[in-house]
Amino acid sequence: MFDPHAIAVVGASNHHGKRGNHAVRQLLDDGYPHPVYPVHPREACVLGLPAYPTVSAIGAPVDLAFIATPARSLPAVLADCGAAGVAGAVAVAVGFAETGDEGARYQAEAVAAARDHGVRLLGPNTSGCFHLPARINLVGLPEVPTGPLGVISQSGNLLLSVIAAAHRLGGTGFSRYAGVGNEADLGFPELIDYLGDATDVGAVCGYAEGFRRGRETLAAITRTARRKPVVLLKGGQSDAGGRSARSHTGAVAGDATVATAALHAAGAEVVAREDELLPVSAALANWPAAGPRVAVLADGGGHATMTADAIAGTGRLRLAEPAEATRSRLRRLLGPAAAVHNPVDVAGATDTDPARFAEAAELLLADAEVDQVILVGLIGGYAQRFDPTLAAAEQRASQVLAERAVAGKPLLVCSVYPGERSPVLAPLAAAGVPVMSSVDVTVRCAAAIAARQQWLAAAAPQWPPLPSPAAPPDGLRPLTEPAVRELLAAAGVPIGPHRLARTPAEAAQAAGELAGPVALKVVSPDVVHKSDVGGVRLGVAPADAAVAYQELLAQVSRAVPTAALTGALLTPMVETPGVELLIGVAQDATFGPVLTVGAGGTLVELLRDVSVQPLPVTAPQARAMLDRLGVARLLRGYRGAPAADLSAVVALIVAVGEVVLAHPDVVELELNPVLAQPAGATILDARAFVVD
Amino acid sequence: MFDPHAIAVVGASNHHGKRGNHAVRQLLDDGYPHPVYPVHPREACVLGLPAYPTVSAIGAPVDLAFIATPARSLPAVLADCGAAGVAGAVAVAVGFAETGDEGARYQAEAVAAARDHGVRLLGPNTSGCFHLPARINLVGLPEVPTGPLGVISQSGNLLLSVIAAAHRLGGTGFSRYAGVGNEADLGFPELIDYLGDATDVGAVCGYAEGFRRGRETLAAITRTARRKPVVLLKGGQSDAGGRSARSHTGAVAGDATVATAALHAAGAEVVAREDELLPVSAALANWPAAGPRVAVLADGGGHATMTADAIAGTGRLRLAEPAEATRSRLRRLLGPAAAVHNPVDVAGATDTDPARFAEAAELLLADAEVDQVILVGLIGGYAQRFDPTLAAAEQRASQVLAERAVAGKPLLVCSVYPGERSPVLAPLAAAGVPVMSSVDVTVRCAAAIAARQQWLAAAAPQWPPLPSPAAPPDGLRPLTEPAVRELLAAAGVPIGPHRLARTPAEAAQAAGELAGPVALKVVSPDVVHKSDVGGVRLGVAPADAAVAYQELLAQVSRAVPTAALTGALLTPMVETPGVELLIGVAQDATFGPVLTVGAGGTLVELLRDVSVQPLPVTAPQARAMLDRLGVARLLRGYRGAPAADLSAVVALIVAVGEVVLAHPDVVELELNPVLAQPAGATILDARAFVVD
Repeated sequence: MFDPHAIAVVGASNHHGKRGNHAVRQLLDDGYPHPVYPVHPREACVLGLPAYPTVSAIGAPVDLAFIATPARSLPAVLADCGAAGVAGAVAVAVGFAETGDEGARYQAEAVAAARDHGVRLLGPNTSGCFHLPARINLVGLPEVPTGPLGVISQSGNLLLSVIAAAHRLGGTGFSRYAGVGNEADLGFPELIDYLGDATDVGAVCGYAEGFRRGRETLAAITRTARRKPVVLLKGGQSDAGGRSARSHTGAVAGDATVATAALHAAGAEVVAREDELLPVSAALANWPAAGPRVAVLADGGGHATMTADAIAGTGRLRLAEPAEATRSRLRRLLGPAAAVHNPVDVAGATDTDPARFAEAAELLLADAEVDQVILVGLIGGYAQRFDPTLAAAEQRASQVLAERAVAGKPLLVCSVYPGERSPVLAPLAAAGVPVMSSVDVTVRCAAAIAARQQWLAAAAPQWPPLPSPAAPPDGLRPLTEPAVRELLAAAGVPIGPHRLARTPAEAAQAAGELAGPVALKVVSPDVVHKSDVGGVRLGVAPADAAVAYQELLAQVSRAVPTAALTGALLTPMVETPGVELLIGVAQDATFGPVLTVGAGGTLVELLRDVSVQPLPVTAPQARAMLDRLGVARLLRGYRGAPAADLSAVVALIVAVGEVVLAHPDVVELELNPVLAQPAGATILDARAFVVD
Repeated sequence: MFDPHAIAVVGASNHHGKRGNHAVRQLLDDGYPHPVYPVHPREACVLGLPAYPTVSAIGAPVDLAFIATPARSLPAVLADCGAAGVAGAVAVAVGFAETGDEGARYQAEAVAAARDHGVRLLGPNTSGCFHLPARINLVGLPEVPTGPLGVISQSGNLLLSVIAAAHRLGGTGFSRYAGVGNEADLGFPELIDYLGDATDVGAVCGYAEGFRRGRETLAAITRTARRKPVVLLKGGQSDAGGRSARSHTGAVAGDATVATAALHAAGAEVVAREDELLPVSAALANWPAAGPRVAVLADGGGHATMTADAIAGTGRLRLAEPAEATRSRLRRLLGPAAAVHNPVDVAGATDTDPARFAEAAELLLADAEVDQVILVGLIGGYAQRFDPTLAAAEQRASQVLAERAVAGKPLLVCSVYPGERSPVLAPLAAAGVPVMSSVDVTVRCAAAIAARQQWLAAAAPQWPPLPSPAAPPDGLRPLTEPAVRELLAAAGVPIGPHRLARTPAEAAQAAGELAGPVALKVVSPDVVHKSDVGGVRLGVAPADAAVAYQELLAQVSRAVPTAALTGALLTPMVETPGVELLIGVAQDATFGPVLTVGAGGTLVELLRDVSVQPLPVTAPQARAMLDRLGVARLLRGYRGAPAADLSAVVALIVAVGEVVLAHPDVVELELNPVLAQPAGATILDARAFVVD
């Protein structure tokens, strides 16, 4: 379908400005080497080619049908395509599910027709597709720069944005594109795999507002990310954004934090800004993954400082510490005024000889302490800035850098005279090295390169299909805390001593067995938030346990007269201090069960210090989730406090995930707080919801 | 000095590539209408002008000397300038304080010479200055686009960056520039005032790594910001950045958070990214301050969504809710496929008639519910994208938008076909409307416009000069908590009941007077962190107070055998829960006493939830500082908890600032925690440090 040896253009037209005219013309202009068949109900000839009334009337094999006819005609056209043996169709018409119920009906009819007749469908409401090495451009855009990027987008305008950005940047371009449109048949999972399999795609660059098949998409991203970089911009991050997303594609944008975390875990580099998507994709397409130690070579202190600031701001990169030998060589090369500690500031030493800048870059690239090098300053502009006679030397320096660039260590270039403004940088562009104009975007690219190495170094995540519990929220039944503890205990989770008492006498006996002050918590299927109704007593001596039990149940009865009271749960008071955490699983409409780890206690929503990942979560992943938390500093032992037992916490996180996966009826499960202590972790409260 | 009617170029040269050659040539090329006097020890003629051996040999009035001779000659040249009655000198030579002790000596000599001879000095180590409307360009850069921006920079390369950015953006440019260099004489305060006074400067755009005279700089910013926008990028935000900043100008970068907060409080718009500096400056120069309600007009759902996301991400803007009448008119104009809720997505309605886009923009601009309008999409590219015959209609639409732009309500334009790529946008550029390429940067500009309105609406802050305590940290003496409380009480701060006990009997009596369980805290000039040494007892009944006193002092004696023990402070146990805050003042090397308000308790450093501002802090400013905190939600009453008594907290904040200002010997003062309760605020602990 995407490498067709014959294309029918349904709705081909002699009228300039129509998509069906543009598609035929572009195929002819680009020299598409296989047959192009215009299809038009009445015209005998379109743009000089013989036209056919239907696809089946062509009478020769057709691989791909580009369909530019109105929405209502689509089911019939697809049926006709199927009769003609067409493999795939691209439907650009709008007026389907994105517009409401009537459109959704047309779309359902079209999908049924495609399925019945064995035709795969891209769209409808797609901006089209292109495959430039095969001279196929069906997006209606001329002058697309060619290069290693494969693009998937839920917005045609976003494709325009990245094409414009590639023009500005120079040194990069595109090989393939697919507009997902309404994802009626082919969607993100298939299209990501398609670009993942394409050898002419060096990196996948995508824009998504929502995913219809979240877990399949994660699996496709992970498959692809093992082989090549996947860079995604997620639209609809805000509520307002989400509203627009709905009216755009009919897809419901999932919760933004979950989506970002899920895509990141799957191996995608998720960019937060529209203006980062193309540069980060280009950098990842051009360079191998590399470490976080960055050397900065600047020809001015201001640029050196701003780059160092941006590096510190990423939290993922750090300034490399070049070897003493490198610094000595830099000193000899650049003279006494230069700063040869990283960031290196040549301080005018290259003003009269730009070649020295390339030599200095080579010294840094050769240093084993350096993972990546960022050049920042006037590169490409010495002749314009100082003396026109420097142009030849600049061109040579650019050539040297381009050759080094091929050698493999990332060399990111940021200049006041970027791509289009400096002809002497042509060798760098030819080597696929974009010359960027923003310090911040350049550093963002280096961060992506380092993040990719980190992701590749970890074991690939798995995203098995999971049955969706799909119960309405009001159809959920809470489990009592003892029941939750039993569930955990049955799965081998150490939950500590506890007793369920149903009478004052049982409470007294249980407290005696627990030997020391205890906590009493009401047990009732009707009480989820126990402390809100006075359902918790702390520090009760065994001698007082019977009375405390009676008081507790009386108090809860007064607060919730309708509550059925099972009894009370008794646990020993915790003596050892620790860090309060939350560990929980909830259902996401897009990605299924998602595990959350975070700062726990009563202020969870306020702190919003959480890591999330769709299940399953492995031990190394759980460890990484903890590392990303703000409370990670507390867990490591803050201000002289002992470090928490991270392996116990990690084991608990993994076990919580496994319990939920093993019990599809458990829709939500939350331990909060969990006390992460120097030895072990204690569950202080637990709740769960099940579907009946 | 900056509007000179005669310029001497000292170190003028016939050698192409030298600064002294370039300066003379540029003045001649630009048609500077007043005399230019080359000064050279031996040459009789430079670039066709008669040359003089010294400035005093010129024998005619000279207002400005541009000095391009080496470092060692500077004192003598300045003395000669003084003898000739020169008002100001610009010294571009390097090799002064930025290079070390020897350079610092040269610089001190130069400053002394300038002062002795009545010459104001810009530099040394400055990149120069320009004043384009007067045809004076002494930075050695040709082709600077002209426009309303005045630039101050501690880095010459940053000037190159903003010039390049202005070229890319179109529609903006520069009138004046001053490179601060080593700030040996003229520095940020004078140069900000200079640009503030200049009528041809519409906005001040600056880059600073450190400030020598922080409070004077704040005062100059506030003076200027009342009249025109001030936009600053602060370099040296990271430790590594700070290291480079030191080697660059010899200035020590102050603590990053304090600097950013201080500049913001003074009225500057502080940008965090290098690539935001020029666009934000251009937007603020072009548009009046306006409110936060933004209407988005997009010609594609993807761009609409991304813009809405970026707006939500600022935290300072919100999507406007256009009036029903506006939506009806948009519906009639754009047809049924368009989304007429904000963001407005024309959804193809303008593809064949770009004029409709301008009409839709006019409808939104006319709506009283809309403070700012962002256009995003293909503006300027319809002819390129769809049909070359649309160019004329696009040009007209651009003209209409340009005319509306003059009317005053901010109209920010972001296009896939920005400034340089689209000739049809020339009318917008001519009206001073930059067409940006980044959605994120465009939204950042709107946020700056809204922030300026907010700042202008508040009373102007005052930055009186303050004597610096300037004591070394090890020369500070701690005050005991009772002494701190007396200090606060003397200033009229309600500090609640408390008693100092010096014997067990006094403790018993004090506890009886306080009538209820009390807290006992050791009082010792040698113990600052009381709980770390077991110096705190909580919930002591009056009957137990004598014994608790003895145990407390014995415990502290064991922990700190050398501590002199004064006794114990008794306070009532606090019954009413509240939100823990920190209120403190510490000295900043650049800005003097800085007040900090934040989330309090033991995890202050971990949470880093703080607002800071140099003193003085007024009540409205204190209120705004609280509003910016993460714990603001808690203070407002979170999850059913009662709201805190904000006016009590505000009064306490203001009082703490006043106490420090009234007692210059009090270098640091910290109340932590302060419990912000539903009625009032209780100081739970307090400490202070004084110089003797």
